[in-house]
Amino acid sequence: MSADIEPAYLALSGGVGGAKLILGLSKILAPEEVTFVTNTADDFVHLGLNICPDLDTVLYTLADWNNQELGWGQTDETWHFLQALDRLGGESWFKLGDRDLATHLIRTQMLRQGARLSEVVSHLGGKMGIRHRVAPMTDDPVSTLVHTRDQGDLSFQHYFVRDRCEPAVTGFSFSGLAAAQPSAGFMAAITPALRALLIGPSNPFVSVDPILALPGVTERIKQAGVPLILVSNIVGGEALKGPAAKMMHELGMPQTALGVAQHYASKYGAASQGGLVSGFVLDAKDKAMAGQIEALGFAVTVTNTVMVTLADRVQLARQLLEFAQALEAAP
Amino acid sequence: MSADIEPAYLALSGGVGGAKLILGLSKILAPEEVTFVTNTADDFVHLGLNICPDLDTVLYTLADWNNQELGWGQTDETWHFLQALDRLGGESWFKLGDRDLATHLIRTQMLRQGARLSEVVSHLGGKMGIRHRVAPMTDDPVSTLVHTRDQGDLSFQHYFVRDRCEPAVTGFSFSGLAAAQPSAGFMAAITPALRALLIGPSNPFVSVDPILALPGVTERIKQAGVPLILVSNIVGGEALKGPAAKMMHELGMPQTALGVAQHYASKYGAASQGGLVSGFVLDAKDKAMAGQIEALGFAVTVTNTVMVTLADRVQLARQLLEFAQALEAAP
Repeated sequence: MSADIEPAYLALSGGVGGAKLILGLSKILAPEEVTFVTNTADDFVHLGLNICPDLDTVLYTLADWNNQELGWGQTDETWHFLQALDRLGGESWFKLGDRDLATHLIRTQMLRQGARLSEVVSHLGGKMGIRHRVAPMTDDPVSTLVHTRDQGDLSFQHYFVRDRCEPAVTGFSFSGLAAAQPSAGFMAAITPALRALLIGPSNPFVSVDPILALPGVTERIKQAGVPLILVSNIVGGEALKGPAAKMMHELGMPQTALGVAQHYASKYGAASQGGLVSGFVLDAKDKAMAGQIEALGFAVTVTNTVMVTLADRVQLARQLLEFAQALEAAP
Repeated sequence: MSADIEPAYLALSGGVGGAKLILGLSKILAPEEVTFVTNTADDFVHLGLNICPDLDTVLYTLADWNNQELGWGQTDETWHFLQALDRLGGESWFKLGDRDLATHLIRTQMLRQGARLSEVVSHLGGKMGIRHRVAPMTDDPVSTLVHTRDQGDLSFQHYFVRDRCEPAVTGFSFSGLAAAQPSAGFMAAITPALRALLIGPSNPFVSVDPILALPGVTERIKQAGVPLILVSNIVGGEALKGPAAKMMHELGMPQTALGVAQHYASKYGAASQGGLVSGFVLDAKDKAMAGQIEALGFAVTVTNTVMVTLADRVQLARQLLEFAQALEAAP
């Protein structure tokens, strides 16, 4: 990972959806042109191991180690550890693959020995042959708490994996966030050289919000005055992946791209009205909503946002860069 | 594991050889009749995991989970974690199998949460379906240091696994041993009800000596006045397993069963002369040495000590009990 040229692009990511866009961006931008920053609020300690699901999804995706069938973990994964753990009465609800465990053990040991998470990411990324810069949103521990209607507060992985997103949610909070500092790699990317901040189709509540809620982040983005462009994570009324649509329903929001746009508009404001968000990327299926989203103050571009093939990922990345350039050129 | 009846037998074990005898004993003695105590001086922390090689060999052997081809680890083991660790530049010299990792993770987590190693062993043994009592020699950390001629002091696993026993040894010491307490399970076995203390064909220097060197152990055995019976770990001038014969050569000792007997005689003394050791079990191949070993003050019995089949293990266990009964009946 190179470190001397200031990158022109910054992309934020939660898990799978964001990682797909990041892979597309990595194919058309040189390592020095872009920084990838991942959510860490879904990190947790399990069986004594520091596990960073979103971070690993981004690393495995960039390394071409990701398991495309599962959508998480490593390719050609096996589950003998998990079977043995189960046989010994251990907590086997979180699916730790045999190969995946090596990542967690190395990370846990480095952190115990005093390394920052950013250093762990650089080390692992280097070993994986990743040349692009990847940084965690913070080196400090932040944990998503999912507030549920019937089961109180659940840690994110208990909600997401153990309870299969079944509990009805009433909101979210992020313990540790107020005291957390954005990582040096994240902050180093927001410079006068930055041309756009790109956010792929990640879950607004549990992937994007914690990154933007880190102390000082929105202020720094506003100061930089660069367009922030979002890709809707809801297409045709359904989440591309994960529980976002179900969450929106439970929170009383429309389960649509418009609902997503309204969330960002109310939380961060449109750049055209002194807020943060400049552009909104809408899937062609949802093009009828373009006018309503523009009415929120966002520039809108309509395209295919569903990334099935590698060509889809590259194509969406290319269109985001074009959209960013158009917004940059706009008065 | 039952806890209310005082056991009549106590067997000490290092790794493979001792575990074979323990398996034989477990087939002819009820769970309440015997306690198995394992060496823990070869324990170490690797990749942040607490690893107890001798203890696991005994547990896996009693559970019938042991890998008979390798002589260590679990049966049907796979190595995907290790491959992934190697790919990420991790320390892969210690061969951690995918299934084996579950044992280490559960143990490490329990110890971190404040459990004693004895509690971990009871927990794991219970999950493995082991009904016999197994206890570590101590709950305190003890580490074998191998003093070498050319490479200074090596931790045991670095000497044994990483360096494949190649460095010439000049002696051994056990850090932590002077401050360690024998485990409650070990001490509870040495009562007036005890009829014999049995030591299988384990390495005298790195498996048996650390157990007997724990503070108070030899005194307590002497007080109990029970026969201590040893099985030679050298047969026909070769170690049944491991580096014992090579070590004896490097230490200037004869690489024979007589050499083993001389080591125990000089270190612990013969019970017939106020020392600790009553009986010595000699392989039929070495029967010519019986007279010289008797001259050291030991009672000697000659039998087949090489345990290839389960029947061999049971047969040797049976002969040890008969030998113990004969010694008990002797004036």
